[in-house]
Amino acid sequence: MIIVIKKDTTQEMIDHVVERIKTAGLAVHISKGKERTIIGAIGDESVLVSMALEAMPGVESVMPIMKPYKLVSREFRKESSVIDLGGGVRIGDTEIQVIAGPCSVENRQSLVDCAIQVKAAGAKILRGGAFKPRTSPYDFQGLGTDGLKLLAEAKKETGLPIISELMDPRDTELMCEYVDIIQIGARNMQNFRLLMEVGKAGKPVLLKRGLSATLKEFLMSAEYIASQGNSQIILCERGIRTFETATRNTLDLSAVPVLKEETHLPIFIDPSHSAGRWNLVAPLAKAAIAVGADGLMIEVHIDPANALCDGAQSLKPSKFTALMGELRKVAAAVGRTL
Amino acid sequence: MIIVIKKDTTQEMIDHVVERIKTAGLAVHISKGKERTIIGAIGDESVLVSMALEAMPGVESVMPIMKPYKLVSREFRKESSVIDLGGGVRIGDTEIQVIAGPCSVENRQSLVDCAIQVKAAGAKILRGGAFKPRTSPYDFQGLGTDGLKLLAEAKKETGLPIISELMDPRDTELMCEYVDIIQIGARNMQNFRLLMEVGKAGKPVLLKRGLSATLKEFLMSAEYIASQGNSQIILCERGIRTFETATRNTLDLSAVPVLKEETHLPIFIDPSHSAGRWNLVAPLAKAAIAVGADGLMIEVHIDPANALCDGAQSLKPSKFTALMGELRKVAAAVGRTL
Amino acid sequence: MIIVIKKDTTQEMIDHVVERIKTAGLAVHISKGKERTIIGAIGDESVLVSMALEAMPGVESVMPIMKPYKLVSREFRKESSVIDLGGGVRIGDTEIQVIAGPCSVENRQSLVDCAIQVKAAGAKILRGGAFKPRTSPYDFQGLGTDGLKLLAEAKKETGLPIISELMDPRDTELMCEYVDIIQIGARNMQNFRLLMEVGKAGKPVLLKRGLSATLKEFLMSAEYIASQGNSQIILCERGIRTFETATRNTLDLSAVPVLKEETHLPIFIDPSHSAGRWNLVAPLAKAAIAVGADGLMIEVHIDPANALCDGAQSLKPSKFTALMGELRKVAAAVGRTL
Amino acid sequence: MIIVIKKDTTQEMIDHVVERIKTAGLAVHISKGKERTIIGAIGDESVLVSMALEAMPGVESVMPIMKPYKLVSREFRKESSVIDLGGGVRIGDTEIQVIAGPCSVENRQSLVDCAIQVKAAGAKILRGGAFKPRTSPYDFQGLGTDGLKLLAEAKKETGLPIISELMDPRDTELMCEYVDIIQIGARNMQNFRLLMEVGKAGKPVLLKRGLSATLKEFLMSAEYIASQGNSQIILCERGIRTFETATRNTLDLSAVPVLKEETHLPIFIDPSHSAGRWNLVAPLAKAAIAVGADGLMIEVHIDPANALCDGAQSLKPSKFTALMGELRKVAAAVGRTL
Repeated sequence: MIIVIKKDTTQEMIDHVVERIKTAGLAVHISKGKERTIIGAIGDESVLVSMALEAMPGVESVMPIMKPYKLVSREFRKESSVIDLGGGVRIGDTEIQVIAGPCSVENRQSLVDCAIQVKAAGAKILRGGAFKPRTSPYDFQGLGTDGLKLLAEAKKETGLPIISELMDPRDTELMCEYVDIIQIGARNMQNFRLLMEVGKAGKPVLLKRGLSATLKEFLMSAEYIASQGNSQIILCERGIRTFETATRNTLDLSAVPVLKEETHLPIFIDPSHSAGRWNLVAPLAKAAIAVGADGLMIEVHIDPANALCDGAQSLKPSKFTALMGELRKVAAAVGRTL
Repeated sequence: MIIVIKKDTTQEMIDHVVERIKTAGLAVHISKGKERTIIGAIGDESVLVSMALEAMPGVESVMPIMKPYKLVSREFRKESSVIDLGGGVRIGDTEIQVIAGPCSVENRQSLVDCAIQVKAAGAKILRGGAFKPRTSPYDFQGLGTDGLKLLAEAKKETGLPIISELMDPRDTELMCEYVDIIQIGARNMQNFRLLMEVGKAGKPVLLKRGLSATLKEFLMSAEYIASQGNSQIILCERGIRTFETATRNTLDLSAVPVLKEETHLPIFIDPSHSAGRWNLVAPLAKAAIAVGADGLMIEVHIDPANALCDGAQSLKPSKFTALMGELRKVAAAVGRTL
Repeated sequence: MIIVIKKDTTQEMIDHVVERIKTAGLAVHISKGKERTIIGAIGDESVLVSMALEAMPGVESVMPIMKPYKLVSREFRKESSVIDLGGGVRIGDTEIQVIAGPCSVENRQSLVDCAIQVKAAGAKILRGGAFKPRTSPYDFQGLGTDGLKLLAEAKKETGLPIISELMDPRDTELMCEYVDIIQIGARNMQNFRLLMEVGKAGKPVLLKRGLSATLKEFLMSAEYIASQGNSQIILCERGIRTFETATRNTLDLSAVPVLKEETHLPIFIDPSHSAGRWNLVAPLAKAAIAVGADGLMIEVHIDPANALCDGAQSLKPSKFTALMGELRKVAAAVGRTL
Repeated sequence: MIIVIKKDTTQEMIDHVVERIKTAGLAVHISKGKERTIIGAIGDESVLVSMALEAMPGVESVMPIMKPYKLVSREFRKESSVIDLGGGVRIGDTEIQVIAGPCSVENRQSLVDCAIQVKAAGAKILRGGAFKPRTSPYDFQGLGTDGLKLLAEAKKETGLPIISELMDPRDTELMCEYVDIIQIGARNMQNFRLLMEVGKAGKPVLLKRGLSATLKEFLMSAEYIASQGNSQIILCERGIRTFETATRNTLDLSAVPVLKEETHLPIFIDPSHSAGRWNLVAPLAKAAIAVGADGLMIEVHIDPANALCDGAQSLKPSKFTALMGELRKVAAAVGRTL
């Protein structure tokens, strides 16, 4: 950690800062420049974080040097992680994986129909919400356990592994009985108790980035899961909140190469939620593959106009099939398969 | 709801949109201008929200007219709500209430000392975290149940009602045994299951605004709580996330007069978390009162330099006492007491 | 324009609003719902914009229906515009165009070397700053007229048309003598006098999006130029300002498909400035082509480590050449050439 | 400047970085920790800024230590600056100054009426736009020179010094003939040529913060002016662009105490533009004084409903007079006069 001392600070104040750092067990290097004195604290920086050095008299700023995440960092593990779902579905490998399906599970017929069609188009994983986080308490909240049962039936029919969102730590065990990947939604990215539960559950987790989470915070939330012994984590960028209102959120595609440097975990992109409009899904999905994402999560609905949730951003199966063909070309152009 | 139709849309497409609105049970008004056709849908707009009209061919945009919140709105209840904690502590009345205390409960001695001093300075409610949401899994996570017990002791010593944060729906009952107000933190503002639990618990709730929550979303989260029968809700602005990094967050003081128009609920400001630096707390606290807030939430620690959490933003008791004197003058200047 | 009236507004207040709209020469449609009265104003909406209807008693909100831009809109001109620079360089056509060169012109040798190499790699337009907008008054401000002369020499050597940034309306004529495309930088996107000057100058203009400009404002700035008779405008997204600090700016690639719907103008992406780091340029450039951009603007420097400006984001010619090969594959995958 | 070296970087790479720093004339301190090597560069940091050290192999991050602004910093001048307009109007002193008047000058009668009334209410400076930056080329652009002449007449009638906005460097001399303070609008905060012109003009300047300018950039723009020899600069916060749409912009009141630490220049607040609604002006104006601002800039119009510009945010003279009475109480509460 680097501590910058204000100009005209007394030696006594500087000594007081140095003393505190040494008491915490770190070594100290001091560089005196003409305008500023700089203190370098060498050792376990995390001890200093809670010490409020920036509130001490004479301290101008405090700059951490170490990354706050460990287990999920590229430094900790140089090779990219691959999550193997069995049946040849490997996440984080050369093949790009597409998760597709409806926003929420509505009934057996439409779910199974959708599953059959997205499978035929090349999707390898089925999505479907059973518990739905809705902004309004008066909106459809999902079918709950019945939704999970329908997902299990769709899996039986198609062989597709399934993913669904967990909202409540009390549902973790139930969820684990049914799904292959547990999804943590953007609004729960810093629901730390939920992160700890899925860390203990041991199932693969897809963690969505919060609407205003920095990439550092995103990685810290993944670290929460990993710290409980579970490092089968997929990071999913789904748009951040900015001043721009032409799209529901601003898809931060730069996050993919930045995260690839910082972490060994696979990175997915959800173009459906970020844009909020089905006609933006295709260009953004292509861009996601071009920028280096390991997979996509796309909403597909048999009948978007009558969907109980997020119909405006859902593709019809026919459009999804066409898109998959286009995505294969882009994947090939960047040396990957799909 | 207003549906704007694109130029050059066929009559058949327009009819199709109109048909869907009528099927949903709403009446329709059509205005044809030279450039645009406008459809007004009259009736229960919430039915239309999930219908994805914006994805229909020919539809340019869809504009809701009704407010999505009801129970918390100023339309529903014209007079401002007052929450009576007993012992003369009324929130939302002429008297401005100050909640003070440490970020986290650390030990009996420091908590009780702090409680005695903030009470002497004029604070009417004691804060203290027992369960702490921390960005890093390696940081101090709070004393848990032991922390709640210490808060209960501090209450016994001083008579101050207490507030503490709830992070997990499984702790709701436990929390209700100890605290007078349940706090929902910014990161859990859209943890809908937690909102429903506190809605059922029936205790007063202080709901913090999420870092990137619009005021509309903030009110919708309050509506979640109210929809379960609990309308003893305090809204607390604590800074939003913007591009500016000179302060930890940007305190949105305009939120106070805007919310005062929209809702009957009392509004608090937390200047400690938004600024992240103790020397900004005093000017922001004064501004909060001047702008019309009903109360403040301020971090005070006996020994900020050795606090286990957020020491940089905590005031010493002596500075807090001085601040309360200054705040009284500003309160008087805007016709309130403190 | 739609005017929403508050609940419980008196008929007199409503009449007053209606009166003002009629006085302005627009027709009025009134729909009375159970909770809200809606007034539709039919006619030239721009007249109403300055009338401050939202400040009138009883008015809850005012929603414009018409787009504020005309000449640059897709409604005004359905086919995409192509800007022909001569010599077979057509912007906005099937072929993707790449603008490359140094951030600032430094000396003859390095500029001509760079020009020769980017031309060999496939770039069709040479960039180079003569007048540099720098955040600090103490930083290198560009070579000025001498820089323009060097650009002219590089053009003579290579035949590449050139683009350079205009910062001051007083330099417009001078600039027009030398360059083929005038660049308006992000910080000048709403320098309306400058926009008017380049509108009159009649040269092709590349207009960069402001760091916090909405797409609507971006199009309005293009409309300023077009309103002076010049519709040879290229829009260039170069990253917006958000809370994320891992990249210098957040490249808003969704802007491409959204703008393609709204306007007939060609859209470029500048991946160098948005990322601020050379190793992000390649993935973002590929994504830009995949998402549908008509061209790219990329910084290339013979010796980035000794560049006088923005070296950290500049590619060496060898890396640029390799990138062009990769971009060709992505272009082919989306049905374009490069 | 601190340069952090990546783990596992070769000694040769480190030597290369050190070499470059030394060549630039700075001294070097190296601290080797277990995980990171840190290089401290001691000397004139500004030389390093353009050297792109962050692009060198092995460099993880580069952290500046020095502030990039000098003349405007509190370090350069410890006492707060006071700008004396004559006639007892001192900006930056104990007395809070209020600038009031219409958004744009429309005609002699309304301007003089307005001037007389705001003077009677206690405003000491008259505002009025002659050149108006408008988002749309089709909106009213101001009366130009005629507007300046009317301002001069209003000054003659009332004795109030006047302020008006400069948009074009070519109008600087003209503007200086008429106004006492030159205003640089938010959209021109980084119009560096304009800043240099007003720096040379020698008149007091009110510089508005750009919609997405950090406080550091804001101070750098002030430094541009100061670098030309003019340090009579007033900084004016007028709202920043965030995701929140309930207000036009988010007024960043924390900027006041932060800027007060960093600079000796006086700080004003414009509550009219940030909120965009007249009924938010009063609470925000009170908050501005409570937080420590040296002055306010408030839009007042004789007949807001018929204003040619920004009527929705303008106060009627009667409301302004009432507000001034309330502001006096808040000023007294924080030890100032008005």
